[in-house]
Amino acid sequence: MKNSEFVDRDLKTVWHPCSQMKDHEFLPMIPIKSGKGVYLQDFEGNRYLDAISSWWVNLFGHSNEYINSKVSEQLETLEHVILAGFTHEGAVRLSERILKIAPQGLSKVFFADNGSSGVEVALKMSFHYHKNRGETRPYFISLKNSYHGETLGALAVGDVELYKDTYSEMLMKTIQVPVPEDQKEESIWEPIQELEVLLEKRSHEISGIILEPLVQCAGSMHMYHWRYLIEVKRVTEKFGIHLIADEVATGFGRTGKMFALNHAEISPDFMILSKGLTGGYLPLSLVLTTDRVYREFYCDYTLQKSFLHSHSYTGNALACSAANATLDIFENENILNSLSEKMKFMKRELEKFQKLPNVKEVRQTGMIGAIELQGYKWEDRIGLEVYKYGLENGVLLRPLGHIVYFMPPLSITIPEMEKMISVAFGGISKLIQ
Amino acid sequence: MKNSEFVDRDLKTVWHPCSQMKDHEFLPMIPIKSGKGVYLQDFEGNRYLDAISSWWVNLFGHSNEYINSKVSEQLETLEHVILAGFTHEGAVRLSERILKIAPQGLSKVFFADNGSSGVEVALKMSFHYHKNRGETRPYFISLKNSYHGETLGALAVGDVELYKDTYSEMLMKTIQVPVPEDQKEESIWEPIQELEVLLEKRSHEISGIILEPLVQCAGSMHMYHWRYLIEVKRVTEKFGIHLIADEVATGFGRTGKMFALNHAEISPDFMILSKGLTGGYLPLSLVLTTDRVYREFYCDYTLQKSFLHSHSYTGNALACSAANATLDIFENENILNSLSEKMKFMKRELEKFQKLPNVKEVRQTGMIGAIELQGYKWEDRIGLEVYKYGLENGVLLRPLGHIVYFMPPLSITIPEMEKMISVAFGGISKLIQ
Repeated sequence: MKNSEFVDRDLKTVWHPCSQMKDHEFLPMIPIKSGKGVYLQDFEGNRYLDAISSWWVNLFGHSNEYINSKVSEQLETLEHVILAGFTHEGAVRLSERILKIAPQGLSKVFFADNGSSGVEVALKMSFHYHKNRGETRPYFISLKNSYHGETLGALAVGDVELYKDTYSEMLMKTIQVPVPEDQKEESIWEPIQELEVLLEKRSHEISGIILEPLVQCAGSMHMYHWRYLIEVKRVTEKFGIHLIADEVATGFGRTGKMFALNHAEISPDFMILSKGLTGGYLPLSLVLTTDRVYREFYCDYTLQKSFLHSHSYTGNALACSAANATLDIFENENILNSLSEKMKFMKRELEKFQKLPNVKEVRQTGMIGAIELQGYKWEDRIGLEVYKYGLENGVLLRPLGHIVYFMPPLSITIPEMEKMISVAFGGISKLIQ
Repeated sequence: MKNSEFVDRDLKTVWHPCSQMKDHEFLPMIPIKSGKGVYLQDFEGNRYLDAISSWWVNLFGHSNEYINSKVSEQLETLEHVILAGFTHEGAVRLSERILKIAPQGLSKVFFADNGSSGVEVALKMSFHYHKNRGETRPYFISLKNSYHGETLGALAVGDVELYKDTYSEMLMKTIQVPVPEDQKEESIWEPIQELEVLLEKRSHEISGIILEPLVQCAGSMHMYHWRYLIEVKRVTEKFGIHLIADEVATGFGRTGKMFALNHAEISPDFMILSKGLTGGYLPLSLVLTTDRVYREFYCDYTLQKSFLHSHSYTGNALACSAANATLDIFENENILNSLSEKMKFMKRELEKFQKLPNVKEVRQTGMIGAIELQGYKWEDRIGLEVYKYGLENGVLLRPLGHIVYFMPPLSITIPEMEKMISVAFGGISKLIQ
């Protein structure tokens, strides 16, 4: 089959996410037939190196044999069972294993289906915790330039205008505080001070602060120093508000450690996981929290303090099998140790970009690298030029505006990284000519 | 392994959905080892007939061989690919097939991961549609006693106090109108009149009305006449607001037709599907809409009218394969025709309950049957007694308060229905003694 036949059918029926569909009058829509390792292949045999892990989810390559075998096994025994009043081995094993590697103090696991739903669970639980203690605290704090998902609660704590402004009349009011402006340690103090000043005045009406640790991924891959997390932890304890860590994108090795919080060695009150959790296979999210939070809901039913949130597929057995297989690979293949060479390689390669006149800054946190372009207007849509160049040269890059970035599967090899980075270099260089 | 060992591990780590965890000091937590057909089996070999389709998702039995084979095939080619700028066969085929069987006029498919996220997509799209036309319409109408999910946007259009009241300070304001009070046709006129009076005054600030057609499932399985849907359709057209049909629970044969809207032969502006969509296998949801809506977003990107909603696993290839397999079964096994005998059987059996002194009413829509108990206070938690009796006798019933209901897999046989219903009868009768 030709790509074009397939694309015609697609464009008649599918409304794609996060897309202006009219763009596809000039932008190719790529129909994928199969995936293997870091490569996706279309119906005409063209291959694309998946430099963005298909929206930051894939960890160990497409159609991974080991994960496939585990999901297949699960199909033969149990595809799904309601998780209210019932449980199953995959959900319990996954919970035990995640709690074992999560920051200390996290001791309970609540299940949902995607990152947005996980964020909503954490927000509702945090608010409800205070209410169960007799306090109504309707506000949440988040960082400027933050992104936490697309459902209305998650969107409300976000701060990316592009996604949020249209819906402002539908959103609960939240408070944004400054994020450190760069990765230097000295940049953290002003934002921390501003947070403290705010909490001195308003902590009694604030449930918690939510943040993406170290990297604001959909927020232009903005990065900041881990010391900020230590200070935020101190401040949230001082003022008695919750620290909610959104590790949906940063979790599972992306930052070079299992979780971004590990860099600061702190424990949050809530931690949200999704994306890489299933190795890029299936939608699943987890909200981890503490016994302290759990106990505030644990009482006779008639006191009406229960957390009555649910999704039909909560704790889905197939998704849990993919997640357990993903943890197996982390353990069996010593993945985190294998990353240091790749991170060093990325660092060295990124320096080359710094010399290009249209590059403002390069930055890196673990296996995430970003190149910020300069000298263009947003209407130029310069990222699309790099995107098209990437596709023509066999690499799926998907710049965020004028930020070209890499977030490849952790299993990528050095030669594959070389290809990925050199194509990005070519695409950015071409803009100058 | 004994159930109890497993349950101990579970209760140390998992915070279950929609549960007061303290209940499990006296209520059994059932660890499921495997599922086959309508039965779930625990670690000690006890079997439970899944009378509620594991939260209304399962259609053709657990660990269904055909669906298993199709998901396994998919594992070998492509587990997942980003759906922005990319597409794959399963998503396109599923979209084409769903549009072919959906009410006329629906022509585009947007993907999400669960029912709540699907509802949020529809609400945002409806609001955004009006905004793209220069109108800000911040209100949505829903029916009294309605339920549409748990994320904050979905929760805001719900009206079940139990789920909603705690979070009132976090929710956007919405408007509830009366739902017809029973299944008689004559009950629809007062609610319709009230809706018209409201819209006469306020339609300019209202984006749309959202409803579950025919059955308010989480709303105590309250049921109403299909004629109401025809009148709502007329009214929404008259006043230029959207009709949003939440068929998350009612879709895929539950009401005896493919979609509940088919009973009224009307087309909505948005239709949300999930639960049965994948046969009970995997989280996936679809929002279907019209060309009219689609075109209002289709323009040059710089006009900033794009719908920039996304979830990482949007259009997940594995979930699409389960959904396509589910549609195969509907076609190949002529499922809808096979239901009439089962529905008649349920009707006959439900009549027996009517004679019990603690039964207020029985009601049925297609394959959904409900028995409303009377003479108890909510604190009696009488549903729990029926739940425990069910488990002791090998049937998973999960009453909603004092409503005992059946929503079994469509593949259930008459003898299996007989068992399911007789155990429910036993449990309800026992309450009288």
